[in-house]
Amino acid sequence: MDSTVLAYALHRAGSGVTLLSYDYGQRHRRELDFAARTAEALHAPHLVVDLSGIGAVLSGSALIDAGVDVPDGHYTDVSMRATVVPNRNAIMLDVAVALAVSAGADAVAFGAHAGDHPIYPDCRPAFLASYEPTARIANEGFLPAGFRVVAPFIDWSKADIARLGDVVGVPFAATWSCYKGGQQHCGTCGTCVERREAFDVAGVMDPTDYATASEVS
Amino acid sequence: MDSTVLAYALHRAGSGVTLLSYDYGQRHRRELDFAARTAEALHAPHLVVDLSGIGAVLSGSALIDAGVDVPDGHYTDVSMRATVVPNRNAIMLDVAVALAVSAGADAVAFGAHAGDHPIYPDCRPAFLASYEPTARIANEGFLPAGFRVVAPFIDWSKADIARLGDVVGVPFAATWSCYKGGQQHCGTCGTCVERREAFDVAGVMDPTDYATASEVS
Repeated sequence: MDSTVLAYALHRAGSGVTLLSYDYGQRHRRELDFAARTAEALHAPHLVVDLSGIGAVLSGSALIDAGVDVPDGHYTDVSMRATVVPNRNAIMLDVAVALAVSAGADAVAFGAHAGDHPIYPDCRPAFLASYEPTARIANEGFLPAGFRVVAPFIDWSKADIARLGDVVGVPFAATWSCYKGGQQHCGTCGTCVERREAFDVAGVMDPTDYATASEVS
Repeated sequence: MDSTVLAYALHRAGSGVTLLSYDYGQRHRRELDFAARTAEALHAPHLVVDLSGIGAVLSGSALIDAGVDVPDGHYTDVSMRATVVPNRNAIMLDVAVALAVSAGADAVAFGAHAGDHPIYPDCRPAFLASYEPTARIANEGFLPAGFRVVAPFIDWSKADIARLGDVVGVPFAATWSCYKGGQQHCGTCGTCVERREAFDVAGVMDPTDYATASEVS
């Protein structure tokens, strides 16, 4: 949802956008199909980078390890630490930066937001502030001048993202959040709870087909 | 050769070492077999992480793109820029850091040296200085206290590495440098030229079976 709103917003602002998805062996592989639909709607190229070889050697995260359950409950609970894939955003951003070098792109954009901060250290402003110069130094002489790593939502709530998505016409039913990998959004895992709350707080109609009734509204 | 000397040196110093190799679709895949031999000699675990999905979406580097020739000549020549894989060391280090988190390891070590600096920005001290804190911030709360990214050769010449390798008993014939991917070291690509020079300057016997006679000594 966050990435999709970002892609729509950048597209509406006139940027040439290429969508990147990562297949890292995540349970919620359905997000890849939803990303493909977004690319189609925006007439944007869509690359799916196979990182399953990294997932194969990591273990202990509920997102990729079938032996670990995705916890229910609120996203900021300690149990949600089980969904941390070590160093995930650094790896994903690094691959995006590599592709930016290869394509001559002048920016990499990602949809981290304030709600991610408590659990995921690689979604925090301090990470972005350290990552961006590192990426420039790592590719000095190979990146376009003025290259940026942009994360415009980094201090936003997910409700703010829902509001912007509403403004730029994101078809929210065609976005995927649930970490459990079922055919419907489960409605109870941390990311489903957060998604529901965001629409509720934003006062934006939530078209998501959840498997369980809301506890929020 | 650099990584192998580093692994032997750390092992001799009493560190528990796990060797990491990356399969990113490189022509010189033979290096993976040589790394396996090193692991066997050191009784160290050896993980090969399949990053070929990243190679599949990148293009334009002679190391992974069959349409681009590996240039001959000295390593510092402009032509050797063709061997740059964008952001390669950041990606490799980030995967190593992810595995360190997963395994509770207190350091990631890599063998960048001063000879790499002119061509590869992600081998320079400035990169390391920016990368290490970024890795710590990206994994705050998940890495052991005092976690380090160590690159002890970063200001060394390759001749210095050859000398250390000689001291710690590295079987140099069981190390692989050539970027061309043949059955023998070609003797003429940048990394072969650099390897030859290193042994020559260090006064260490070079047991490498090159396809062409040396122009150095």
